[in-house]
Amino acid sequence: MAVQRLTSRDIRSESRLDVMKALLVAGEASRNELVRETGLSPATVATVVGELITAGIVTEGRTTSGGIGRPTRVLHINAARGLVVGVDVAETYVRATVFNTSLDEVESAVVHRDEHEHTVEYVVDGIERAVDTALASAGAEREAVLAVGVSLPGLVVRGGSTSVVVPELTWHETGVDRIRERLALPVVVDNPLKAVAAAELWFGEGRDCDSMITINLGTGVGAGIVIGGEILRGATSSAGEWGHSLLVLDGRACRCGRRGCVEAYVGAPGILETLREIDPDNPLVRVGAQRDVIEALAGELAAPEPDPAALETIARTARYLGSAIADLVAILNPEAVALTGWTAWALGEHLLPLTRSTLVAQAPGESAVDMTLRISTVRGNSVATGMAVSALTWFLADVGLVTRVPVGL
Amino acid sequence: MAVQRLTSRDIRSESRLDVMKALLVAGEASRNELVRETGLSPATVATVVGELITAGIVTEGRTTSGGIGRPTRVLHINAARGLVVGVDVAETYVRATVFNTSLDEVESAVVHRDEHEHTVEYVVDGIERAVDTALASAGAEREAVLAVGVSLPGLVVRGGSTSVVVPELTWHETGVDRIRERLALPVVVDNPLKAVAAAELWFGEGRDCDSMITINLGTGVGAGIVIGGEILRGATSSAGEWGHSLLVLDGRACRCGRRGCVEAYVGAPGILETLREIDPDNPLVRVGAQRDVIEALAGELAAPEPDPAALETIARTARYLGSAIADLVAILNPEAVALTGWTAWALGEHLLPLTRSTLVAQAPGESAVDMTLRISTVRGNSVATGMAVSALTWFLADVGLVTRVPVGL
Repeated sequence: MAVQRLTSRDIRSESRLDVMKALLVAGEASRNELVRETGLSPATVATVVGELITAGIVTEGRTTSGGIGRPTRVLHINAARGLVVGVDVAETYVRATVFNTSLDEVESAVVHRDEHEHTVEYVVDGIERAVDTALASAGAEREAVLAVGVSLPGLVVRGGSTSVVVPELTWHETGVDRIRERLALPVVVDNPLKAVAAAELWFGEGRDCDSMITINLGTGVGAGIVIGGEILRGATSSAGEWGHSLLVLDGRACRCGRRGCVEAYVGAPGILETLREIDPDNPLVRVGAQRDVIEALAGELAAPEPDPAALETIARTARYLGSAIADLVAILNPEAVALTGWTAWALGEHLLPLTRSTLVAQAPGESAVDMTLRISTVRGNSVATGMAVSALTWFLADVGLVTRVPVGL
Repeated sequence: MAVQRLTSRDIRSESRLDVMKALLVAGEASRNELVRETGLSPATVATVVGELITAGIVTEGRTTSGGIGRPTRVLHINAARGLVVGVDVAETYVRATVFNTSLDEVESAVVHRDEHEHTVEYVVDGIERAVDTALASAGAEREAVLAVGVSLPGLVVRGGSTSVVVPELTWHETGVDRIRERLALPVVVDNPLKAVAAAELWFGEGRDCDSMITINLGTGVGAGIVIGGEILRGATSSAGEWGHSLLVLDGRACRCGRRGCVEAYVGAPGILETLREIDPDNPLVRVGAQRDVIEALAGELAAPEPDPAALETIARTARYLGSAIADLVAILNPEAVALTGWTAWALGEHLLPLTRSTLVAQAPGESAVDMTLRISTVRGNSVATGMAVSALTWFLADVGLVTRVPVGL
């Protein structure tokens, strides 16, 4: 990859995104408030707002009188400009979430997926059914959709055309083309780590931070990395595969085929393995599906006198997690780390205290002392939200307002 | 830290640095060649060259006739504009290297340092003697020096004023002020990881790559990280402390006080520890200072029938190193990794084959298959070279040609 040169077009593009983000967060704002919020000059804000109004993305609303001076017009995103859909293709389900142009969640639908069925048609069928069901609940037609963002669990590689390398789903360009054909809509694809980073960048820690990491904890684990306000993709789009960095040389077998990976300890199956090591006969081990065991473990921890094996499982997991986050902090030294994903939602508050103290002890020098570590404040399914952000950004690029496009089309 | 906004001033600043780098690498070039080399427009190159000529940084030399068309003037850096000095304060020595404005090495001097003596005055005294000795060899006075860049082995934190937090050298702002007072010259400070990254960015892999990692192997180990053409500093300037990320949970004690750090396995003392584990009575173990043992080990490996314990030490070290680099690749997915530092110079060629195969096997997916892994092509002491780059950049900022300044003053 050659060194990328930034142009003044990119700067204008960034200004438009900054104004949009500020409006999305504030709900509504005057031009003066946008100047304060974005740090852009009044002239730039005036130009950018004009462009966004022309494109139908922003509308001018009621006139307010602040008491002093002349009345000002309030601006907001034109929520009715169209819909964007974020789709999370996970291992056991496909979730489609419909958002308006203000990125308010409108409706959501889940289609269950057999995790052993990996053909393109089966998965594309699930995507189509989830999207159509969500749109039907929203009382909307496909024609109202500006773009669809689909997160696929694998490497999403940009090149001449986009290809997706999914360990289980062995489909390349053709798979993405099939999604487009079936939906007959603009489609952008990315992987869940980039999606959670996009969600955090627009709606979480990223609003105040220049560098931050979103850790996704579920069956698999990984890191969405933001540096200098941008999502790190890497040379072959595989940046953030922290789940497959080493925690223990020659340690537990990981499903990736290597040994000792972080995921083998802090992914949901790894947490169950830890419980099994502590107490092979524990009733929680026999609950069934991994997600149910994690929920049952969370329930046990909320009891007045939790099972000691459950407590010890949390203690060891927090120690693994704190040590593994310390490695990220040693290498990247971010301002903030946010935890997301269903394991984080279920167990996060139990894991946080010991994870934090392990992290502070293990990270080099004082690097973790003032660092923010918390459960992500992004509400809902952050993968779907992140893909809706990508879909909206794609649309803005399509109408010529943004120069740097996410993966896709 | 607030989100940093790029301005058109920054773009002009980048263009000037691009033209300077292209001239430094090419030695001399016409405006047309600079257009081809940098990808900038002819108008931008003409403007930037004019500014650099006005500042006395670039001069126009002989006129060439390319055969076709009108004769063109050849440009080069004005090597006589002044000197910059790069200083590497290592654990056992202080090396000062004098460069001309073209960043050609002029002279170098080493002052030995007692690694148990950590007072500010002792270290500053060593820096001053090294700088003066190198300048005397070059037949130059301090007055000819535009700026001095000093690498200090610790965290160099930017803030209201620069402070250096060195584990052994417990001196904050006052120490840096003392360097300035004694040298009576502009001084920028940084740490060795940022310095090797700067050297690699200007003279190594960074000339062709947008993202790359320079791994520094010596007594300590660490990573100089470049993403998007910029050196990653981190929220508290400690990015790149890969040497203190985990290789083995609860593994070998590291001098940082934690256990299982990468450095405890691939730092020079870690390599000796591995040899001792394999063969406690090996004569190499008794050679003396760590640097001498590493050199003796390299000598042994060059023998027709190397000692099996030496071979096994290399095999294990390469496996540790390959696994630890795989973690960096999992997280950052760079285009290239370069190895530098005295251990890399001594043992690198012996380590590379097995390091590379371990890396390819351990890194996620195909991420390491097409990645460049080699010994850095930056000649000489890359810490001193990197600090000379920082000093020159500081000077360019001081005369108003560059907007983003390295740590310092």
